[in-house]
Amino acid sequence: MTQHYQAQIYVTLRPSVLDPAGTAVQAGLSHMGYDNVTSVRIGKYVEVTLTAPSEADARQQLDQICDQLLANPVIENYRFDLTQVSTPMNTYS
Amino acid sequence: MTQHYQAQIYVTLRPSVLDPAGTAVQAGLSHMGYDNVTSVRIGKYVEVTLTAPSEADARQQLDQICDQLLANPVIENYRFDLTQVSTPMNTYS
Repeated sequence: MTQHYQAQIYVTLRPSVLDPAGTAVQAGLSHMGYDNVTSVRIGKYVEVTLTAPSEADARQQLDQICDQLLANPVIENYRFDLTQVSTPMNTYS
Repeated sequence: MTQHYQAQIYVTLRPSVLDPAGTAVQAGLSHMGYDNVTSVRIGKYVEVTLTAPSEADARQQLDQICDQLLANPVIENYRFDLTQVSTPMNTYS
């Protein structure tokens, strides 16, 4: 039977990769008076809803989706949390 | 005494706001054969390291930072997880 799953995917730059956008945000915060902020790193957060026959299938497919489209494996890491939802979540409502 | 905190901030579009980038990713996935993906919403993920005298101070400051710089409160929501770290984490290493 087909199950509905919601995945929360976090894509982050690898620690060895410089993050100019994060550095710019940190500089902006410093100019705004928040000079106690010592590091800012910016990543992506993606919520995906999908159907799959099992959680294992959903995880396998999400790994492929992240490797092929959402993350650049050369410079980015990803991880995701997967939750089974009883009804298809319509996050557009 | 000054404590070190790491915050993981999630900025998401409000549910009523259309997400053309998410729709484009969903269409791309569909073309790649992943037609079981029913919804994609794209947000931002920001890791911030900061020093503060207490957790309450850190939370208050992060609320201000999100409202003033990281999120657009008109179209975006944010939430964050806060963790005290014993030593300043250098995520650039």
